[in-house]
Amino acid sequence: MTKRSVQHVTFTLERTYAASPAQVFAAWADPHAKRRWFADGDGDNSETLVYELDFRVGGRENGQFKYQGTKVLGNETIYLDIVPDRRIIFAYTMSIDEVRISASVGTVDLAPAGKGTRLIYTEQAAYLDGHDTPESREGGWNWLLDQLGADLRRADA
Amino acid sequence: MTKRSVQHVTFTLERTYAASPAQVFAAWADPHAKRRWFADGDGDNSETLVYELDFRVGGRENGQFKYQGTKVLGNETIYLDIVPDRRIIFAYTMSIDEVRISASVGTVDLAPAGKGTRLIYTEQAAYLDGHDTPESREGGWNWLLDQLGADLRRADA
Repeated sequence: MTKRSVQHVTFTLERTYAASPAQVFAAWADPHAKRRWFADGDGDNSETLVYELDFRVGGRENGQFKYQGTKVLGNETIYLDIVPDRRIIFAYTMSIDEVRISASVGTVDLAPAGKGTRLIYTEQAAYLDGHDTPESREGGWNWLLDQLGADLRRADA
Repeated sequence: MTKRSVQHVTFTLERTYAASPAQVFAAWADPHAKRRWFADGDGDNSETLVYELDFRVGGRENGQFKYQGTKVLGNETIYLDIVPDRRIIFAYTMSIDEVRISASVGTVDLAPAGKGTRLIYTEQAAYLDGHDTPESREGGWNWLLDQLGADLRRADA
């Protein structure tokens, strides 16, 4: 029998991007843009098997990624709150080979900062049964927010 | 234009019930039982307009309540993780007259305690645009967990 446990953790990450709030918002809202930095980013040694995004309140996002050779990493998201160019809140679960490892609420807060945008990402997470750690998750989101920054710079070039 | 803000708060509540984990779990899983204590509880001065529960991972729950005479309180839930007799994790939003006031993840953790069950409820919440407060939400869940206790005692009688 699996030993059951839940670890509740909140973390916050911040970036400032040289792009408008509307441009940063679009990078989350547009399925092609989101896929580029979120699913198909460089250097994560994973392969995107499935990526679908229905970006509206109540809409879902589904990502399935092959990683470490044979495992399948799953990401299921539902959007809870959307304020255009300003705020996105979603709940999501992660799984490895269909074993759920976490359930989280993520808040993306966008505000103008000079000519750019300050993004604050807050994740309130429940890590399940010892399958994930706060350090690993925070590292993953740091990487993703850097991928988003690189994608915004490419779009600007 | 609405002033946008998000307040992130985590709180934890604990109860010990004189009922088995299977009985407490059933009070969350069975739509008729859940409706009794969650939607139709005594003394909350609200009227249940809609209550639907599809209790499975990915399933939804929808409650609409008339309160303060003319307002409609909305509760939309999606179930993220279910371990029978042990754990329930859900994401939910609350709204007043279709204005969203919060987005949360709730974890219900059940464990045997003597002949009864210890329930730990952890809510990781984002309160939106100043429309709700941690005190109000925590008070609401304290009330709900007492309603659950009363319902379990009635079932036992």
